[in-house]
Amino acid sequence: MRHLIDWQYYDDQTWESLIERALWHKTSTKRWHHSADGKSIGLLFFNSSLRTRTSMELAAQQLGAYASTLVVGQGTWGFAWGKPGEVMDGNEAEHIKEAVGVLSRYYDALGVRMFASLSDLEADRSERLMNVFKEAASVPVVNLESAFYHPCQALSDAAAMHTHFGGPPKGKKFTLAWCHHPRALPMAVPNSALLTAARLGMEVTLACPEAYKLDSSILSLAEQYATSNGGSFSHTSNLDEGVRDAHVIYAKAWSGPAIYHGKDEEQALRMSLKDWRITTPRMNGTDQGVFMHCLPVRRNVVVDDAVMDSHSAIHLLQAEFRLHAQKAILEHLWELD
Amino acid sequence: MRHLIDWQYYDDQTWESLIERALWHKTSTKRWHHSADGKSIGLLFFNSSLRTRTSMELAAQQLGAYASTLVVGQGTWGFAWGKPGEVMDGNEAEHIKEAVGVLSRYYDALGVRMFASLSDLEADRSERLMNVFKEAASVPVVNLESAFYHPCQALSDAAAMHTHFGGPPKGKKFTLAWCHHPRALPMAVPNSALLTAARLGMEVTLACPEAYKLDSSILSLAEQYATSNGGSFSHTSNLDEGVRDAHVIYAKAWSGPAIYHGKDEEQALRMSLKDWRITTPRMNGTDQGVFMHCLPVRRNVVVDDAVMDSHSAIHLLQAEFRLHAQKAILEHLWELD
Amino acid sequence: MRHLIDWQYYDDQTWESLIERALWHKTSTKRWHHSADGKSIGLLFFNSSLRTRTSMELAAQQLGAYASTLVVGQGTWGFAWGKPGEVMDGNEAEHIKEAVGVLSRYYDALGVRMFASLSDLEADRSERLMNVFKEAASVPVVNLESAFYHPCQALSDAAAMHTHFGGPPKGKKFTLAWCHHPRALPMAVPNSALLTAARLGMEVTLACPEAYKLDSSILSLAEQYATSNGGSFSHTSNLDEGVRDAHVIYAKAWSGPAIYHGKDEEQALRMSLKDWRITTPRMNGTDQGVFMHCLPVRRNVVVDDAVMDSHSAIHLLQAEFRLHAQKAILEHLWELD
Repeated sequence: MRHLIDWQYYDDQTWESLIERALWHKTSTKRWHHSADGKSIGLLFFNSSLRTRTSMELAAQQLGAYASTLVVGQGTWGFAWGKPGEVMDGNEAEHIKEAVGVLSRYYDALGVRMFASLSDLEADRSERLMNVFKEAASVPVVNLESAFYHPCQALSDAAAMHTHFGGPPKGKKFTLAWCHHPRALPMAVPNSALLTAARLGMEVTLACPEAYKLDSSILSLAEQYATSNGGSFSHTSNLDEGVRDAHVIYAKAWSGPAIYHGKDEEQALRMSLKDWRITTPRMNGTDQGVFMHCLPVRRNVVVDDAVMDSHSAIHLLQAEFRLHAQKAILEHLWELD
Repeated sequence: MRHLIDWQYYDDQTWESLIERALWHKTSTKRWHHSADGKSIGLLFFNSSLRTRTSMELAAQQLGAYASTLVVGQGTWGFAWGKPGEVMDGNEAEHIKEAVGVLSRYYDALGVRMFASLSDLEADRSERLMNVFKEAASVPVVNLESAFYHPCQALSDAAAMHTHFGGPPKGKKFTLAWCHHPRALPMAVPNSALLTAARLGMEVTLACPEAYKLDSSILSLAEQYATSNGGSFSHTSNLDEGVRDAHVIYAKAWSGPAIYHGKDEEQALRMSLKDWRITTPRMNGTDQGVFMHCLPVRRNVVVDDAVMDSHSAIHLLQAEFRLHAQKAILEHLWELD
Repeated sequence: MRHLIDWQYYDDQTWESLIERALWHKTSTKRWHHSADGKSIGLLFFNSSLRTRTSMELAAQQLGAYASTLVVGQGTWGFAWGKPGEVMDGNEAEHIKEAVGVLSRYYDALGVRMFASLSDLEADRSERLMNVFKEAASVPVVNLESAFYHPCQALSDAAAMHTHFGGPPKGKKFTLAWCHHPRALPMAVPNSALLTAARLGMEVTLACPEAYKLDSSILSLAEQYATSNGGSFSHTSNLDEGVRDAHVIYAKAWSGPAIYHGKDEEQALRMSLKDWRITTPRMNGTDQGVFMHCLPVRRNVVVDDAVMDSHSAIHLLQAEFRLHAQKAILEHLWELD
C-alpha cells in the first residue's frame, strides 16, 4: 500500500514522474477528470489550514472523487494517543486507533495534518504520531504536514521552480533564508524545502543564525542528496551573504532545535533577530532571484510589502501548484498512474 | 469581470433578467442542471449563517458546480487587513490579500460574508473590507452580506414579491418596519430591502423612529430609484401609521446610524422602544398585507407568534428564493446566461 | 411522509427488508449508485460525531445525493426551542421552527443529532425536541441519535450480527453489558441495542447494577419484542454471570435513570463500579462470543486492550455497517425501495 509520509521513501523515478504529472495538471486544458471516480478521501486537521484543505478538497473533486474535511475538536470527539495499557480516563473519548480504523472502512485514503510538538524532539523526529496513524490505517495515508515533513508543499515547490525556470532547476542557486517571526513555528516546511532543493541538484545555501540550523538528520540527508544529484550544500549565518547571487530566496521562519531545550531562551533569541527579513535591497543582491514562501506569511515581519507585491514573488504560483501536485499525489496513492 | 457587491452597479435590464431567472428556477420542474459543470466556488464566512451557506452550497451543487465553505477562525488562520506598510506582528498569521489571491487560483468565484463594524461609519459605508477583498481577487466575488448590502437577499425578496403578487409588485405599498431587538444589528438587510422596493417602483414607506432612519446615502438612492421607477418614498415615525393599508410589511431590527456615535445611548434608546413589534392588530390594519422577514427573527420580540404562524407570513418563501436567486447569480457571474 | 425516529414505528416487514438492504450494500461489488441522483440531505449536529457524520455524508454521496453538514454553534446561529408565546430575548437568534422550515425548503431530507438532556426524564422519554423538529419539517427526518434512540446504529448492529453469524441471529445469546465510565452518558445506544436484540428473537440478558436498569418503557418494550419474536429477556446484576455462554457481549456505559434524580449520587455510584469492564477472562467465559461496541470507546476503562485488539472484537464491522445501513435508510426515506 502506498502512503505519502515524505519523499525520501520514494525513489528518484517516482519523484520525477510526480513532478511531471503536477506540471501536466497545470497545463492541462481540462481541469476536471474522471480518473478517480467513486473514490473518497477523509481529511483530518489537528491544526489550522487554508491552502491545504481547500486545494485537497478541490484536487479530489476535480479527479471525480469525494473529499470530506474534519477539524478535530470542532464537532468531532477528542482523540487519545496513549500507548497499549494506558487507561483512557481523561478528556478524550476515543483512541486514534479506532478513529483511523473506522475511517479506513469508509474512505479510500486519509489525509492528516499534525504539527510538531516542539517539546519532544525524539517524537517529532521519528514522526511518532504519524506512524501511529499510519499503523492504524488500512488505506493510503497522505501527510498534510507533520512534525518534520510537508511533502505536498515540497512537490508543489519543485513543480513551481520547474515552471519558473522553464525546466529542471538543477544548478540554480537556492537559498533557504531563516526569517524573524513573533511565534515559534515548526520545521516541516524548511526541512522539506531544503531536501527538495538538494534532491533537485541545486546549489543550496541554508542562511540562518547558528542556533537555527535544522535538525542534524535533515542536514545529513541534504548533504547526501546534494552529492548524489550533482549539487552542493552549505551554510552561512549571514543573511546578506546568503542571498547574494541567488536565483531563489525561499524565506521561512522556524523555531530551530533550540526550542526543544528551552522555550523562553529560544523566544528571546528570536525576538533579538528582527533584521532577518527579506527586503528589496536584499532581493537586489540576488541574480534576478525569485521570492518563494509557502504561506501564510507575515508582511513586514518575514518579508517587506515591496517584495511581496513585486513581480519577483512567486508565492501564488507555489500555492496554485498545491492543487496540481495533490492531484498527482492522489493518482499515485490510488495507483491510477 | 463580474462581481456582485450590490445591485446599484447593475443596470435595470440585468436586474430584471436576474429576477426572471430566479423565478424560472423556482418553477423549473428540473432542479438539477449542468450549466456550471466543473466550476467551483469558495465561500468565506466571517459571521454566522444558516440560509446563506446552505442555499449557496446547494445552488452551486444543483448547477453542477462544487462549493466549499470556510468559517474563518474555525480551522483556518486568522486574517489581517492592514494597510501597506503595517507590520503583521499581532495575532493574525495571514494577510487577506494572500488568502484571496490563493483562493482565486483554486476557485472560479468567491463568496464572502463580512458584517458591518458598527463602529467606523466611513469604512462601513464605503464597503472598505469588501473592496480590499475584491481588489485581491482575480475571480468574481459575490457579496453574502457585507457592511451595507445583502444583494442575495434583495434578489430573493424581489422574486418572492413577484411570486406573491403574481407579477411585478410595481405600485404596491411596501413598508419597511423597524422593530425592537435586544441586540444592535447591522443595516445591510434594511438598506437592501428599501432599495429593492424602490427600484421595483413600489410605494415605499420607511417606518422607524427618527434616530433609526437609514444612512443618508441610502435614503437618497431610494428617493432616486422611486422617482425613476414611478414609485414613491416617504418616512413615518409612527408604526401604526406605517403599516396602514400596506401590501407588504417588511419587518427588521437594526441599530441605525446612532450606533456610530454612542453604543450605550443607542442601546438605551432601542430598549425603550419595545412596542415596535409586528402584531395581529397591526397586520389587520394592512390591505391584506403579507409579513416578510429575512430571518433569523426573534419571535415575540420583532413579531408575534400569531403573525409568524399565519398565512400572511411569507418568510419561508423568501428563504426558499435564496436558492433560486443564487442560481441566477452564479449563472450571471460565470457568464452562463 | 416517512421519518425515521425509531424502529418501533416500523413493522417487521420493513425492518427486515432494511436489514436485507444493508446487507446487500455491504456485499454489492459496486459501491456507487445513482438511485438518489439529485437528492440532498442536510445534517444538523447539536453534539459531536465522527462515524455518523462521515458515514452519512458518504452514504448520500455514494447514492448520487448531496449531503451538507452543519455543526450547531460553529458558524450557525444558536437556536431557541421555546413554546408558543415565549419571548425570544435571550442568546438564541432563531427559533428551531424557522430553521427547520427553511432547511425543508432546500433539502430533500434532514438528519439531526440531539443527545438526551439527562435532566428532564419526561422530555427525554417523549423525545420532545425530536418531535418539535419533526413537526417543523416538511421533508423526512432521520434520527442521528436522539434522547432515547439511535436507529442508524441499531440497523447497523443488526446487520453486523447477521454477517457475523452468517444469517439471522435468532436464538443466539446476547448480553448488553453495562460498563464503568468517568462520564454520565445517555441511553440512546443501550436502549436501541436492547430493543434490536429482542426484536431479532435473541436470548437477551441485560447485565447491569440494579440502579442502571434502563427506563421502564424500554424494558417493557423489550419484553414484548422477546415474546412476540420467540426470544427471551432477563436481567442480572452480576457481570460475570451475564457474560457466561453469551454469543455477543454488547458493552456500553450509560448513566441510568438514576441520573434524573441526582447527578452527584449517580456519579459517586458509577465511580465505585470500576470492575464493570470487559476483560479477557470475561470473554473467555462466553461461548466464543464476540465483543461489540458502538464507539467511541474508552480503552482499559470500558474494555481492555487485549479484548479490543483480539479477533473477537467486531466494532469495526459495526462501524462499517453504518455506511451500508444508512444507504438503506436513505433509500427508504426517499421511497426509492
